[in-house]
Amino acid sequence: MEEKIKKMLARNWFLTIQELICNEIENIEKGTSHFKTKEWSRSEVKDEGGGKSKLLKNGNTFEKVGVNFSEVYGNFSNHFKKKIPRFDSSKNFWASGISIVMHMKNPHIPAMHFNTRYIVTDHGWFGGGMDFTPCFKDTTVEKIVEKKLKLMCNKHGKNYYRKYKKWCDDYFYLHHRNEPRGIGGIFFDYKKDNWERDFFFIRDVGITFSYLFKEIITKKTKINWNKKDKLIQNKKRGRYVEFNLLHDRGTKFGLQTGGNVEAILMSLPPTANWD
Amino acid sequence: MEEKIKKMLARNWFLTIQELICNEIENIEKGTSHFKTKEWSRSEVKDEGGGKSKLLKNGNTFEKVGVNFSEVYGNFSNHFKKKIPRFDSSKNFWASGISIVMHMKNPHIPAMHFNTRYIVTDHGWFGGGMDFTPCFKDTTVEKIVEKKLKLMCNKHGKNYYRKYKKWCDDYFYLHHRNEPRGIGGIFFDYKKDNWERDFFFIRDVGITFSYLFKEIITKKTKINWNKKDKLIQNKKRGRYVEFNLLHDRGTKFGLQTGGNVEAILMSLPPTANWD
Repeated sequence: MEEKIKKMLARNWFLTIQELICNEIENIEKGTSHFKTKEWSRSEVKDEGGGKSKLLKNGNTFEKVGVNFSEVYGNFSNHFKKKIPRFDSSKNFWASGISIVMHMKNPHIPAMHFNTRYIVTDHGWFGGGMDFTPCFKDTTVEKIVEKKLKLMCNKHGKNYYRKYKKWCDDYFYLHHRNEPRGIGGIFFDYKKDNWERDFFFIRDVGITFSYLFKEIITKKTKINWNKKDKLIQNKKRGRYVEFNLLHDRGTKFGLQTGGNVEAILMSLPPTANWD
Repeated sequence: MEEKIKKMLARNWFLTIQELICNEIENIEKGTSHFKTKEWSRSEVKDEGGGKSKLLKNGNTFEKVGVNFSEVYGNFSNHFKKKIPRFDSSKNFWASGISIVMHMKNPHIPAMHFNTRYIVTDHGWFGGGMDFTPCFKDTTVEKIVEKKLKLMCNKHGKNYYRKYKKWCDDYFYLHHRNEPRGIGGIFFDYKKDNWERDFFFIRDVGITFSYLFKEIITKKTKINWNKKDKLIQNKKRGRYVEFNLLHDRGTKFGLQTGGNVEAILMSLPPTANWD
C-alpha cells in the first residue's frame, strides 16, 4: 500500500474516533455541556498542517476533557533532529494522532488518558496507549482495566499485554518521587510489524478505550464525595502536572515542534494543589 | 583567602538570611502562623550534605512560603557532568544557597522569589537574583522594584543593573507561550570577579529582598480582592508551575543531583488552575 494511502487511512481513523468519543462524552453529560472546537495551523504562511482540538469544561461528570486531533508535517531543523531519537535519517516528517485526557469531577473516578498516533519519516510507525490514574486505591478499576486490556491485546499478539503493560508502568513513572503516575494500562511505540495488522490493533485500542471509560464511569459515578476527597484529588493532579511537564515526551515533542500550546497543555488538570 | 573559609562564610550568611527573613515573615503574620522546619540529608550512608527547609502555610498574608537553605557536596557522576555546563573539569562539587518563593493570599500582592548561591568546583562562583510576579498590571510595584534594585546595583558596579535586569528578563521567560513569567528583577550567575566584593554584593541582594518584600506587602495588603481575582491568580500560578517544571535550571539541578524533592518543589504554588 502506498504511504500516502496509509497516512490518509490513519488520519481519517483518528478523526473518526475523535468524533465518536466526543459524542459519547456529550451523551454522558446528557446535553447539558458541550465541546468547544478550535482548529489551528502550525504556520500562517506555509502548509505545515495543524489540528482540531475539542474541549469540554465544567460538566456534571467531566470537569475537564480535551480531545485533540492533529496532523502535522514539514522539515526538522538540524537542531531539532538531534533531540528526537529516530528522526536522524530523514529531513521530513509527517505525524497524525488523537490524544485524550479526562479529568473527572468525582474524585472516585480516575483521570483517564488515551493516545494513538502514526508517524512517518523515511518509514512509518504507530504508537499509543491508555492509562488510568485513580486518587484512591481501587481494585474494581484495576480489575476492569486489566481484564479488558488483556482480552483485547490477546486478539492481536501473544505477548502484547505483558509487554505493553510493562512499557506503560515504566513510562508513566515519576522518577523524582519514586512513584507511578497511576495504575498503568498499556503503552507502545515504534510499532511497525505489519501495517494492516498494526492499524487493526490501533483501531482496537481506540474502541477499547471508548468501552473502558464508559464502564468505569458507570461503576463509579454514584459514589459520594466531599471536600476532603477533592483535596486528595487536587494533590494527585499536582503529580499529574509534574509528570506531564517534567517527563512526558509528547508534551516536549509538541512544544518543540511549534505545536499549538493550548492544545498540548490541554492535558493539564483544571485545578491542582501542592503541599 | 582559603576556599574553606569562603565556603564557611557563604553558608553562614545563607543561614543568617534564612533566619532573618523567616522572622520577618512570622512578624508580618503577627504570631498566628509559624514555619515548620525540616532538615534533610542527601545520603543516609555518606556525608554529602543536606539542607534545612522551612515552610509556612495558610497565613493571613502568606498563603505558602518556602525558605530553603542547602549545603551539598560530593562527586558528579560522569553521566551528570555532561548535563550541567561548567562542571566538566572537576569531579567534586560543593554548593550552598538560599532560595525563597512566596505565594500570597491576596492576589494583588505579587508572587516573590529570591535566591543566592555559592558553588565551587575547581573554582568558585556566586549566582542568584530576585524577581516579582504580579497577576495584574501594577506600575506601583514595578516602580518600587526598579528604584530599589537600581540603587543597590549602582553601589556595586556601573553596569550591574542593566546587565542583571536583562539577564532576568531573558531567563524568566516562558518560551512556549511567548510571555514573561513576571515583571522581572535581577538575575546573575557565574559571578567571580573579586570574592570579597562579590560576597558583599550577595549580602546586599539578600538585604534588598528583605526590604522589598516588606515594602510591597505594606503597599498592597489592604487592597480588597474577590473570587474572580483569585481565579486570575490561580491561572497565573499555572504559568509559574509551567516555568518551574519546564524551564527552571535550579529545579532540574536539584532533581538530578538527588536533592530533597519536597524542598525543591516547595516553589510550586499551593493551588493552580488551567483553562
